[in-house]
This record gives sequence, C-alpha cells and structure tokens, in this order.
Amino acid sequence: MYKPDRVVICEVGPRDGLQNEEKVLTVEEKISLIEKVADAGFKVIEVGSFMHPRAVPQMATTDEVFRGLRKKEGVEYRALIGNARGVERAVACGCDKVKLNVSACREHNLANLNMTPEESVARFKESTDLARAHQIAVSGSISMPFGSPWQYRIPVEEVKTIVEAYIDLGITEISLSDASGMAMPDQVYDLCSRLKADYPEVKWILHFHNTRGMGIANIVAAMAAGITWFDASFGGLGGCPFVPGAAGNVVTEDVVHMCEEMGIETGINLDKGLEIARWVGRLVAHELPGFVLKAGKNSDLLK
Amino acid sequence: MYKPDRVVICEVGPRDGLQNEEKVLTVEEKISLIEKVADAGFKVIEVGSFMHPRAVPQMATTDEVFRGLRKKEGVEYRALIGNARGVERAVACGCDKVKLNVSACREHNLANLNMTPEESVARFKESTDLARAHQIAVSGSISMPFGSPWQYRIPVEEVKTIVEAYIDLGITEISLSDASGMAMPDQVYDLCSRLKADYPEVKWILHFHNTRGMGIANIVAAMAAGITWFDASFGGLGGCPFVPGAAGNVVTEDVVHMCEEMGIETGINLDKGLEIARWVGRLVAHELPGFVLKAGKNSDLLK
Repeated sequence: MYKPDRVVICEVGPRDGLQNEEKVLTVEEKISLIEKVADAGFKVIEVGSFMHPRAVPQMATTDEVFRGLRKKEGVEYRALIGNARGVERAVACGCDKVKLNVSACREHNLANLNMTPEESVARFKESTDLARAHQIAVSGSISMPFGSPWQYRIPVEEVKTIVEAYIDLGITEISLSDASGMAMPDQVYDLCSRLKADYPEVKWILHFHNTRGMGIANIVAAMAAGITWFDASFGGLGGCPFVPGAAGNVVTEDVVHMCEEMGIETGINLDKGLEIARWVGRLVAHELPGFVLKAGKNSDLLK
Repeated sequence: MYKPDRVVICEVGPRDGLQNEEKVLTVEEKISLIEKVADAGFKVIEVGSFMHPRAVPQMATTDEVFRGLRKKEGVEYRALIGNARGVERAVACGCDKVKLNVSACREHNLANLNMTPEESVARFKESTDLARAHQIAVSGSISMPFGSPWQYRIPVEEVKTIVEAYIDLGITEISLSDASGMAMPDQVYDLCSRLKADYPEVKWILHFHNTRGMGIANIVAAMAAGITWFDASFGGLGGCPFVPGAAGNVVTEDVVHMCEEMGIETGINLDKGLEIARWVGRLVAHELPGFVLKAGKNSDLLK
C-alpha cells in the first residue's frame, strides 16, 4: 500500500468549520485563530468566503479579517467565492487566492440553474479574467464527485467533463469535495488514480467530511493513489448540508497524528494543532468530535 | 487496492462493549440483545466472558446468559476466558467456543507475570486440553500487537513467536486486538500481509478500537492485505483501558454500511443492525459514537 513521504494539510476550519456554527466569531478572534494556524506550520489556510452575507452570515467579515491579518511568508491564504463579485472583494482586501465551486451533480445543477456543471464552470470566465487581471490565483472545486443526494454515483466521464471545463479556463488546481460524506475508499482510490493519470498537469486537493465515519479511511485511500494535498478542519468542526447535526470535516489533528505515526511529513506542529483545536472548542462553546483531542496522541501513552 | 468479495463481522458488543459500561444489563436484556444480533445475520457473536466476577462484574452472568439463550443454527457463540476455570464454566453452561488472550508486549508481561508472552501462551495448555476433551473450540487472541503503552512498537518477530506458541497448542484461529487504539494503516497492512504469508494455516480476525479515529481505516488496510474477519461493536460501545472516556470499538453499523457501499457482502441486515444499536443506546442510557446511527445511510439521502 503506497504512502507518500510528505503531504500538505490545508486548514479549512476558518471557512468550512466556522460557517456551520451558530455562534459567529469576532474579527479579532478569527484573525488570532488564523495567525495561530499559520504559526503551527500550516502552509494553506482557507480564511473565509466572499459569498453574500445574507447567504452565509458567519462569513460576512471575511474582508475585514483579510485586512487585519498579519500574513506569514510562504503561507497561502485563500477564500471561497461564488462569482466575479467575490474577486472584486478579494482585490479590495488583499486576498490573493480564490476558489470557485461547482456541484458535480448534473441533475442537481440542471434542476437548479438550468445548465450542466460544465456550463456553470464556463460561466466562471468573468471571474477568472478579473482575477488574472489582478494577479489573483484561482482554484476550482468540484463538490460531491463521489455521490450526491440527487445522483447516487456520479459517472467518471461526467467528472472528467467538469475537470476539462476548469482546465479550459486555465485552472489546474482542483479540489474534489465530498460535501455529502458519501465517498468510500475503493471509489476514492479508483477516481483519484484515474484523474491523476488522465490529467497529470492538475494539482489535486481532496476534501473529505466525516459524516459516516469514512474521512480518515478515504484519505488513506487517496494517499495510496498518490494524492498529497488534503483539506481538514480543526477539531473536526463543520457539518453536512444534508444531515443536520452530523459530524463535520475530517479532523485536522487526527490526520496530522496519523501522518506522524506513519512517518509522513506534514511540517505541522501537532501539539500546537491540538492547542488550537482546544481553543476553538472554547470559542464555539461546545465539544468537538476530534479523537486525538479526547484520547491524546499515541506517544502520550508511553509509560 | 484489493478488497474482498465477502467479509465476516463478529459482533463483540455483548462482551467488549458492555464490559465497559457502568450500568449492568439484566440476563434477560443480554439474551434478547444477542438473539436480535443473530437475527440480523451475524454469524459470530462474543456473548461474554468467564473472567472472575470481581475483575469484570458486568460479565458475572455470562453462564446464565448462555443457559437462557435460544441458539440459532450456524451461529457461533463465543466467550473470552482467562484460564481452565473458564473452560469448566463453558462446559457447564453450554458455550462451545472460548477465546484466550495474551498481551503482545514482552516488557509488560515480564513485569506483571515474570514470563514472556509465549510462555504465557504455553501455560494455556491446561485450558486447551480440557477444552479438547469436551469438544469446545479454542481461539487465541494477541492484544496490542501494533503497539502498547509499555513498548511503542512490537517487533514482528516477537508477534511471530506468540503466533507460533498458539500454533504449538493447536490453535489456528488468532485475533490481533488493537486494544490500545495505536494501530496505523501502513503497519496493519504490513503485519497482516506478513503473517498471512508466513502462516497460511491461520484464520486471522482483526479487532480494532477507534480510540484515535483509525478503526475504519485500519479495517480497509487489513482488507487490502486479504483479511476477511473483523470484530466490531454495536454503536461503537466499548472503551480503551488506558484512556478513560475515549472512543470504543470500531462501530459495527459503520463497518457494515461501508461494506454495502463497497459491494462487499456481509450477510447482515443493516437496518436491523441500526435498530439494535439504537436499542443498545437506550439500554445503556447514553449517546453512542456510531456515525451512520447519527447521519443515516448514504441511501437515506436519495431524493
């Protein structure tokens, strides 16, 4: 079973985690949190989103967070956007990496927007043109490529059509986001192997939720297929849009702990990661699902 | 990544799960639970243990449970024992399969019992002789072969010495039990591959705890190495002897759900399994860590 020597863990808790919380953190809390994350050694941080504040009120202050943030050299601070308005906000507040997202689910997209996912991606051209004009990097995300409530399993050819639409726009960093928590390890291994082989120019980021307890197993399967970039959320903060109260994103500290134990370098200080997760738990004022948070590291057991 | 066509899930909740609970179930509740488990399609059930009632009071009524149980044809009902006294109790109450256990940890065993693990296994001869005289099957378990609080990693050669001690006693069904929850997928894959190749006559059962969130990933890694027998506990009931309050055994319904989604046959009715877990939650009167229990099956999402 193949495992890489080194992986990159992207901390998405400030966006995908906090946007699911009832309690909205202050700008100061968010900034302090993100600075601690960078200090712990994370090289990619999803700071927030530039969606409409009415749609995602928890992310309404992303612009202010970017303005107040003391950026660390060598760290990438990205934000999720919905359209060109997001690029404008990114330009205005000094965010230099934006991420677009489309659902992999053809039926869903046709019913909601009356266009196919690849037509949706093609419409992102206004955003990518504007981003390029301002030297802002653009990443693309495909949500639910492993299955969705509308389409149980997405045929590989449909995912490939979306990937090609992104490539046509010049986007070669692509996330596969299991937002519905339906992915299974065999499927992850097969799809990742296939996409890696067919599009060697793409940098793949895998984004798993732990809705049905499969997050870590899916990461191991993706690593076996040669994937080395993964999203995760501190303490496992987050949720599933389709299942109220379900578990959130795969837990950052659990992934880092596993990598350490497997001899896979992450560049992250696990103790600092655990401290951050404990602090996040106090900020959101409820228990977090992290396992290592509760049980301690393997090495803590040593007599 | 290899996956088998069919696996056997052994329900160990009645023993490894319930023995960690403060609340002791009545004989009637235990019998009813075990009969429901058999009815759901499980072919191996760990009913309880014949340890001294002072050591494990939750299991004091295992004899009565065996006496009252309506056994289902084709289902194996096993019990954990510590020594020949356990075989005597098994004979007396009609239990026809017992399981012995030794720690893989040399240092631990030497310090506690002043003998090596393989010497401990050799001492089991009294038990195996008595069992054989009464046509009772014997299984052997090795706990913490992936690491223990006393010995961070156990050298493969030390595990092999214990396996050979079991084989010398005529025991060819061997469990590897990660009771400390320290196992990692790469290690699981390597040790399972190695042991399967070196001892093709042995039937291996892998027993994982979800202490640090690795249970399901370890099962996937073991399956990739060709292992097809796994222990699991309803709702994830159980614990870790070294970490108070930590997560318990790998969750039966989550494993069955994964197998169904991966096209791996288990012979188990998942809906009945979920019903059992919900009932166990009511019996022990606290929330259980099962993920599918909370989020529902993938197929529940279908619009």
